Amino acid sequence: MKSAEARIRVRYAETDQMGVVYYANYLIWMEIGRVELCRACGFNYRDMEREDGIFLAVAESSCRYRSPAKYDDEVVIRTWIEDASKRMITFHYEMRIEGGAVVATGSTRHVFLNRELQITRLPEKYFPMFGI
Amino acid sequence: MKSAEARIRVRYAETDQMGVVYYANYLIWMEIGRVELCRACGFNYRDMEREDGIFLAVAESSCRYRSPAKYDDEVVIRTWIEDASKRMITFHYEMRIEGGAVVATGSTRHVFLNRELQITRLPEKYFPMFGI
Amino acid sequence: MKSAEARIRVRYAETDQMGVVYYANYLIWMEIGRVELCRACGFNYRDMEREDGIFLAVAESSCRYRSPAKYDDEVVIRTWIEDASKRMITFHYEMRIEGGAVVATGSTRHVFLNRELQITRLPEKYFPMFGI
Amino acid sequence: MKSAEARIRVRYAETDQMGVVYYANYLIWMEIGRVELCRACGFNYRDMEREDGIFLAVAESSCRYRSPAKYDDEVVIRTWIEDASKRMITFHYEMRIEGGAVVATGSTRHVFLNRELQITRLPEKYFPMFGI
Repeated sequence: MKSAEARIRVRYAETDQMGVVYYANYLIWMEIGRVELCRACGFNYRDMEREDGIFLAVAESSCRYRSPAKYDDEVVIRTWIEDASKRMITFHYEMRIEGGAVVATGSTRHVFLNRELQITRLPEKYFPMFGI
Repeated sequence: MKSAEARIRVRYAETDQMGVVYYANYLIWMEIGRVELCRACGFNYRDMEREDGIFLAVAESSCRYRSPAKYDDEVVIRTWIEDASKRMITFHYEMRIEGGAVVATGSTRHVFLNRELQITRLPEKYFPMFGI
Repeated sequence: MKSAEARIRVRYAETDQMGVVYYANYLIWMEIGRVELCRACGFNYRDMEREDGIFLAVAESSCRYRSPAKYDDEVVIRTWIEDASKRMITFHYEMRIEGGAVVATGSTRHVFLNRELQITRLPEKYFPMFGI
Repeated sequence: MKSAEARIRVRYAETDQMGVVYYANYLIWMEIGRVELCRACGFNYRDMEREDGIFLAVAESSCRYRSPAKYDDEVVIRTWIEDASKRMITFHYEMRIEGGAVVATGSTRHVFLNRELQITRLPEKYFPMFGI
């Protein structure tokens, strides 16, 4: 099973007055993780949008917050595909402080949209990349 | 069961290049919804933090994206408490376009933290407000 | 000279670990202010984009931060046009706590873009709305 | 004169429906740039906050948007100090696509705050680091 790691450093903008990362930002990090996984699978998500007009629309997200990430922490986002078909794909994520605790885990389920933002099938050329 | 409605108008900043609201922003809207619910329950969340040193930390979030919200849409966020105890509280959310489609539904589960960000119990004065 | 007022309530997501609003968010509030000014000028900015394919691209922004806005503050954004031509428009902003201190002042200068994101002239129908 | 370079990759969350980076995000990138410059000057901004209780509060920001940054672009943020005293510091920024066009230039002026968020002087130990 393919997986990929992306690294980010927590931005000041991502903290809130509780002194920790605001909870919606973990979903932004998941996006960074899955784009990195696309690269590991052999393609650039940007090109999939631009050249093939295929968009990965989020149908569901879930996140468990385990330990707060803080400003300037280096966070490693590990992403893997749990389930993929020509109609749907599910990514899983584990985010942990470099050399430290897991801060969050989660998943997102996606459908494929065309340029008119209608549900479509994944083009065949991407099947091997997603392990379908 | 108490519920509350908050209204927001979709900001340009909340859209992405797909032309719809970026998926992490729905979690920000959920926060607006639960703060409004606190007001409907008879207290100001800001004061709970300031005066009682009680913080609502998110332990879990989930969201189902049903239909995309778009720039300048007026979105109604309805929030209600499904489950509350002295240790934990779960909020549910339904977000819909004013007079139109449901754009997303979701839930967040929270624990209570003290000023040192350690898990604590909800003070008794809040029991009736949360229906405990 | 036309001016308009918009009101927002500070979101938890907009605060940072300093306990005040993060400085980039004031630019998001400026956007809310100028969209409200468009409404006061007799048109909807969304429709200007959709129907006429005219986009207000920011060429310059500046902001002076005078007093910090805090979580749950109600902020009034007053916006007015200082200078407008068929090629350029400058908005000014004053943001203050409802019934309280000015938190920030600023301005943005914009050019008009067409759907190909090339610089264009403002269509004549908008001249009277912008006071040109 | 000290300068530093930081690199970021444009996130999907940072784009808007115009298909380019939303203008407030450049201020977030400036923050990343100045934190990197602090590192190049021999200290960690996080520690300055935590250990010395000194906060860099933004008093003014300005940005000129020259050419739009787009999703997945790699952006190099070059930051330098133009002016520093025990009461105030001004950072300048140039942001460009790796190997390509300048996307934005700007500056921020800061004052120093203590833990009570009152204006204070920069402690002497930081004078040489900021070239004062």
